[in-house]
Amino acid sequence: MADEKLTYAILGTGAVGGLYGSFLARSGCRVHFLARSDYAHIRQHGLQVESPWGDFHLPQVHCYSSTMDMPEVDVVIVAWKTTDNAHLAEALEPLCGAETAVLVLQNGWDVERDAAECVGSERVLGGCCFLCCHKAGPGHIRHLDYGRIVFGEYADQARGKLTPRMRAIARDFSDAGIDIEPSVDLRDARWRKLMWNIPYNGLSVVLNADTQQLMHDPASALLVASLMLEVRQAAEHHGCRIEEEYVDKLLEDTRRMVPYDSSMRLDYRHRRPIEVEAIVGNPLRAAQHTGYHPRQMEMLYHQLCFLDRHNRKAAAVADLETVAQDPDQSHHHQQKDGQQQVS
Amino acid sequence: MADEKLTYAILGTGAVGGLYGSFLARSGCRVHFLARSDYAHIRQHGLQVESPWGDFHLPQVHCYSSTMDMPEVDVVIVAWKTTDNAHLAEALEPLCGAETAVLVLQNGWDVERDAAECVGSERVLGGCCFLCCHKAGPGHIRHLDYGRIVFGEYADQARGKLTPRMRAIARDFSDAGIDIEPSVDLRDARWRKLMWNIPYNGLSVVLNADTQQLMHDPASALLVASLMLEVRQAAEHHGCRIEEEYVDKLLEDTRRMVPYDSSMRLDYRHRRPIEVEAIVGNPLRAAQHTGYHPRQMEMLYHQLCFLDRHNRKAAAVADLETVAQDPDQSHHHQQKDGQQQVS
Repeated sequence: MADEKLTYAILGTGAVGGLYGSFLARSGCRVHFLARSDYAHIRQHGLQVESPWGDFHLPQVHCYSSTMDMPEVDVVIVAWKTTDNAHLAEALEPLCGAETAVLVLQNGWDVERDAAECVGSERVLGGCCFLCCHKAGPGHIRHLDYGRIVFGEYADQARGKLTPRMRAIARDFSDAGIDIEPSVDLRDARWRKLMWNIPYNGLSVVLNADTQQLMHDPASALLVASLMLEVRQAAEHHGCRIEEEYVDKLLEDTRRMVPYDSSMRLDYRHRRPIEVEAIVGNPLRAAQHTGYHPRQMEMLYHQLCFLDRHNRKAAAVADLETVAQDPDQSHHHQQKDGQQQVS
Repeated sequence: MADEKLTYAILGTGAVGGLYGSFLARSGCRVHFLARSDYAHIRQHGLQVESPWGDFHLPQVHCYSSTMDMPEVDVVIVAWKTTDNAHLAEALEPLCGAETAVLVLQNGWDVERDAAECVGSERVLGGCCFLCCHKAGPGHIRHLDYGRIVFGEYADQARGKLTPRMRAIARDFSDAGIDIEPSVDLRDARWRKLMWNIPYNGLSVVLNADTQQLMHDPASALLVASLMLEVRQAAEHHGCRIEEEYVDKLLEDTRRMVPYDSSMRLDYRHRRPIEVEAIVGNPLRAAQHTGYHPRQMEMLYHQLCFLDRHNRKAAAVADLETVAQDPDQSHHHQQKDGQQQVS
C-alpha cells in the first residue's frame, strides 16, 4: 500500500462505523458507507458528528444501500453487529480485490472468524474500540467519551508483527484525529476489552441497570469484579497475561464514567437480538477449550441466552400485532430501534 | 406431652400457616391463629380451604391480631416469612410456657436460629413443607399440589433422635390428614428443600419466569441443574450426602408440575422484601464456612441482593406517591399484596 491515503468501505453506519468513517472522510480519505435504515436520510443530509474531539457535519458522503453498488476498496471496516454477520459473505464480495484488507471492529471474541472464512485469515485484521458513543438519530452520531482503537493482525502467523498495512491504516486514522494504537497482539486487546464487556454488558441486561447502578450497589460491584477476574483467568489460560491492576483500572474508570447503557442493554430494551454469542459465548468456549470452566461466565451466558430468546419471542409477537393493526407499520420496531446504538 | 391433642398457635395465617392450621383445627385441635392484614375478614368469615385433600370451610376460628391476646400453647408454628422475624421475640413471649415447643415452617437454611435465640435451641423444631399453595384471597387458601412436611429437632444434641414431642406432633398432623414425616436429620431435609428453592426461587426472580418457562428453555434448564448440583455439593461439604438421583427427581417433578410462581417471585412482583438471606445467603455462608465456594450460588446471591434493594426502593417511592395522592391509601401495596402468597 502506497503513501497516499487508503480507500475505505464501512459496513454499518451506526455509532462505530459512522463515527470513525466520518473522521476518515473529513480528513480526505475516500470512504464508502453502507447504510440500511438510515440510507435515505444520509443520502439527503449527510452525517452529523458530535464529539469531544470536535463537532462537524459532512453534508455529502458516499452512501449506499447495497455493497453491489460500491467500488473495490483497500480496507473494508466491519462495524455492524455480529448478529448481522449472516450477510457478511455476500456484502464483502463486491468490495474485495486481491489486496483488500478487512478490519473487524466488532465486540467479542474471535469475531474475525466470519470474515476470515470469506476472504482468508491472512487478509483480516481486528480492532477493539474503547469508546462511549451512540446514534442520537438517523445519520447523527453522538460520541461521549474515550474513543481509542487498538487493532492488529488476526492470522496466527502474523502474531507479533507490525505489518505495512497496519502502519498505513494507523497513519490514516491518526491523520484523521482518531486515537489509534497498532498492536502486535490482537488477542491481548480482545481479552482486555472483554474484561469490561462481559460483566457490564451481561449484567446490565440481567439486572436491568446502567453502569452507575452496577457500581453503586455493593452486591453488583462485587459481581462485576468477580466476573472480571474470571475473564482475566480465561485470558491467562489462553496465553494472555493481563496485569492484576488492570481490574482496578477498569473498575475505577467505569466508576468515573457518566452513567452508561451498554450496547447489549440498548439492544435488549429495543428488542433487537443481543450479541450474546460474540461477547459471552465465544470467550466462554475458548476458556472451556483450555480446560478452564469460569462458572460465573457460564451462568451469565445461560441467563442471557434465556433472556434473549424470550425477548425475541416478545418482539415477534409485538411485530405480528403491529402487522394485524396496520400492515404498513410492520417495521415499527426496527425503525424505532434505529434511533439509538451504543458500542 | 400427653395422649390428648396438643394446642397450637400459628404465627402467620398465610398459605402455609392457614393451610396446616385449618386442617389441625378441623380435626379437633385447639388452634389459635395470628393474622395481620386478614384479621378482620377471618374473624367474620373464618377460613376457606381448597385442597386436593378435600375442600372445607371453618366458619369460626380463634383469630387474633396480637399474640398478647393469645393463650400459652404446646406448640407455636412459625409460618410467616423470615423477613418478618424481627417481631419474633415479642410475638413468642406470651405464647411460651416452660414446655412449649416452637416449630419453624419457614424456607431457608438455619431459619430456626431466630427462634432458638428467643427460647433456646432445645425447644425448637424445624420443618420443610414440600407444597404448592397460595392465598387466593383474605382467609382463602388454595392448595394446589404436594403438601408433605418433613420435620425434626433443631438442636445439635437432638440429632438422630425421634423425640416424644415429635411423635405427638406427627400424630396430630397425621390425624388431621396431613402428610407428615418426622425426620431424625432435619439438616438433610433442609438441604433437599434448598436444592429446589435456590434454583427455582432465585432464577424465577432474576429471569422473571415461572417453573415451566425455566424448564422449557435449554439454557435455563441447564442452569437450574447446575445450581442444584452446587447445593448438593454444599450439603455434602456440610456432612449431608444426598443421592445423585435426587437431582433428576426434582427436575422431573418440576417438569411435570403445573406452571408455578415461586414465593420469591410473587414477593418480588408485589414489591415485598424477598427471602434472599434465608434461602440463598444463609446456605451460601454455611457452604463457604466449610471452605467450599459455590460460584453460581454466589452470583445468584449478589444478583438477588441487587434486585431486592432496587425493588424496595421502587416500592418506597410508590408508597410515597400514594401517600401524596391520598393519605388513606398508603398501605395500598400491602393490601393488594396480601392477595397472593405461595410457598
